[in-house]
Amino acid sequence: MDIKDSLSHNLDSVDRYIRRLTTHSIPAISEISQHLIASGGKRVRPYLVILSSRIFRVPSPVYTRIAAAIELYHTATLLHDDVVDNAKHRRGTPSANDIWGNKSSILVGDFLLASSSSIIAGMGSQELLGLFIRVLGLMAEGELVQLRLSRDPGLSPEDYYTIIKKKTAYLISAACESGPIMGKAPRLQQSRMRQFGLLIGIAFQLIDDNIDYLSPGTTSGKDKGVDLKEGKVTLPLIVALSNAGAKDRAVLKAALKGGPGDGDVFRRVHDIIEKNHGFEYTKKKAADFAHRAVRLLDGLPRSPELEELKKFTLNVTERKA
Amino acid sequence: MDIKDSLSHNLDSVDRYIRRLTTHSIPAISEISQHLIASGGKRVRPYLVILSSRIFRVPSPVYTRIAAAIELYHTATLLHDDVVDNAKHRRGTPSANDIWGNKSSILVGDFLLASSSSIIAGMGSQELLGLFIRVLGLMAEGELVQLRLSRDPGLSPEDYYTIIKKKTAYLISAACESGPIMGKAPRLQQSRMRQFGLLIGIAFQLIDDNIDYLSPGTTSGKDKGVDLKEGKVTLPLIVALSNAGAKDRAVLKAALKGGPGDGDVFRRVHDIIEKNHGFEYTKKKAADFAHRAVRLLDGLPRSPELEELKKFTLNVTERKA
Repeated sequence: MDIKDSLSHNLDSVDRYIRRLTTHSIPAISEISQHLIASGGKRVRPYLVILSSRIFRVPSPVYTRIAAAIELYHTATLLHDDVVDNAKHRRGTPSANDIWGNKSSILVGDFLLASSSSIIAGMGSQELLGLFIRVLGLMAEGELVQLRLSRDPGLSPEDYYTIIKKKTAYLISAACESGPIMGKAPRLQQSRMRQFGLLIGIAFQLIDDNIDYLSPGTTSGKDKGVDLKEGKVTLPLIVALSNAGAKDRAVLKAALKGGPGDGDVFRRVHDIIEKNHGFEYTKKKAADFAHRAVRLLDGLPRSPELEELKKFTLNVTERKA
Repeated sequence: MDIKDSLSHNLDSVDRYIRRLTTHSIPAISEISQHLIASGGKRVRPYLVILSSRIFRVPSPVYTRIAAAIELYHTATLLHDDVVDNAKHRRGTPSANDIWGNKSSILVGDFLLASSSSIIAGMGSQELLGLFIRVLGLMAEGELVQLRLSRDPGLSPEDYYTIIKKKTAYLISAACESGPIMGKAPRLQQSRMRQFGLLIGIAFQLIDDNIDYLSPGTTSGKDKGVDLKEGKVTLPLIVALSNAGAKDRAVLKAALKGGPGDGDVFRRVHDIIEKNHGFEYTKKKAADFAHRAVRLLDGLPRSPELEELKKFTLNVTERKA
C-alpha cells in the first residue's frame, strides 16, 4: 500500500469511529452530527493528526481516537458558530440550525464538546487534555472578539491575526502537536510541530477568507459573501480599506455597515478589493506562512509522512473551495 | 466560629475565586458571567461541594476550586438554556441573552465550559474529571430529550424523571461525590454520597417545578409560568392530566399546545392542578426523596457538617422561591 492509500485508509477508520460515537438513542444527536459529518468537510484536522502521529510513530488506535475527537470538537464549534452567525448553509447543504433549529444545534454542540473531551481525557495524557481544553477556551475567545469587532472598518491587521489564531489556528496547532505529545518526542520537535501548526492554521484561514469572496457559491461550502454580510472584517477587505481612494473606501464602509446589501453591493466590494490587490496580498501572505511552516519541518526526522505533510502545506494556498 | 459562619465564609471564598476566574480582558466574558453570578442564585452546588468536602476532610483550597468550577459549569448551562428557552428573565433580572444577545451568551457559555473543565482537569483526579465530563454530556442529553418531548400531554412520569435526573440531578450528585473522591473515602461511602446527591437533586427539581406555578413572580428567579409557556410537562401537570375530568383535561391539553396563552390560561391551569392535588403530590414526592436521601447519610461518620447536610436536605422541600 503506498502512503496515499494508507493515509486515506486511516481517514476512513476515523470516519467509521466518528459514526460510531455519534450513533445515539436521542435522534437529534445522531441526525445533526451525521448530517454535518456526511456533508463532507475537508477533514483537515484529522488528516494533520494522522500525519503528525505517524511521523512520531504513535500507534493507529491512539491517533484514530484523537483524530475523531478533534473533528468532533470542530463540528461542535461549527454548530455553535452557525447559530451565532445565523448561517443558512454549511458545506453546500442547509445548515443544521436551519433544519433542526437553534435549540438542538446548541445542545448537540454541547453534547459533542462533552463527548470529544471525554475521548481526550481517556487518552491518559494530562498534557494533551490540558492543551485541548485551553484551545477550547481560546476558540470561544476568538469568536467573541470577532463578534465585538465586527463591522469595524478600523480593524487592524494585528486584531485580525489575533482573531484567526484563536478561532482557527490554535486547534490546527493542537492537531499537529498531538503526534509529538503522544509519541513522547523531544521538546524541541514538539515545539516545532506546535509552531508549524499555528502557521499552517493561519495560512488556512487566510485562504478561507479569500474563498469567501472568490469561490463560485455552489462549489464552496459556505454561501458566497457571508463574511461581508455578517460584517466580518477579513484581510482582503483590510487591505482594500487601507489602499483604496476616498470614494471606494466610502463604498466599502457603507457595505460593512450592512443595510439592504444585495448581490450588486457584493460585486462592487469584490471589485474594489481586486483592484486594490486585496486577494493577491492575502494569498501571498498565506504562501509566506506556508513556507515558514515548511521550513520548521526541516529539523525533523525524514519520512514519507513528513514529505506528505510538506506537500499538503504548500497546497493549502492552492485551495479554491 | 460556629459552623454556619464558617460555611458562609467558605462560600464567600468561592465567590471571590469565581470573580477572579471571570475577570477577563474580553468585556462580554466578565460582564455576562458576573451579571449571572451577581444576580444571586442559591449557590446550592458550591454549598454541597463544601459540605461534602468538609465531611471527608478535603482541604479548603481544593474544594474552593471545585465549588467554583461546578458553579461555572452550572452558569454555562444556564446561559445556553436561556437561549434555548428564549428566556427573558433569570433570577429576577433580565437574562443575559436578553441584554447581550444570543450570540454572546452561547460563546461565553462555551468559554465557561472550557474554564471550568480546565479547573477540574487541574485537580489531578482522573476520576473527578471523568465524572464531570460525563455529567456535562448527560445534561445536554437531558435538555435534548426535554425539547423533543415538550408539549406532549402523554409524557410519562418515567420520562419526566429521566429528564430531571439528566438536566439537574447528576450535576448535584457530582457535587456531593466530589468530597469522597478527593478525600479518598471508602468506595461504599462514595457511592452513598453519589446516590444521596441524585436523590436530593431530584427533590430539588421537583420543588423547582412546583415553584414555577406557585411562587409570586417577583420573588422567584424565573418568570412565573414559563414551564407552561415553553411546553415543559412537569410532574404537577402530569398528575393533573392523569386525575382531571375530561373537560379540565381538555383545558390542560389546549394550554400545553400553546397559542396566545395569557394570564387567564395560566390561572386556569394552576387551579386545575391544585384541584387535582398536583402540587401536593409533587411536594410529597420531593419530601420522600429528601427522606430517602437523609437515610443514606446515616452510614457516614458523624460530624457537624453531616448534621448540617441533613438539615439542608430536609429544608429543600420548604423552599418557596
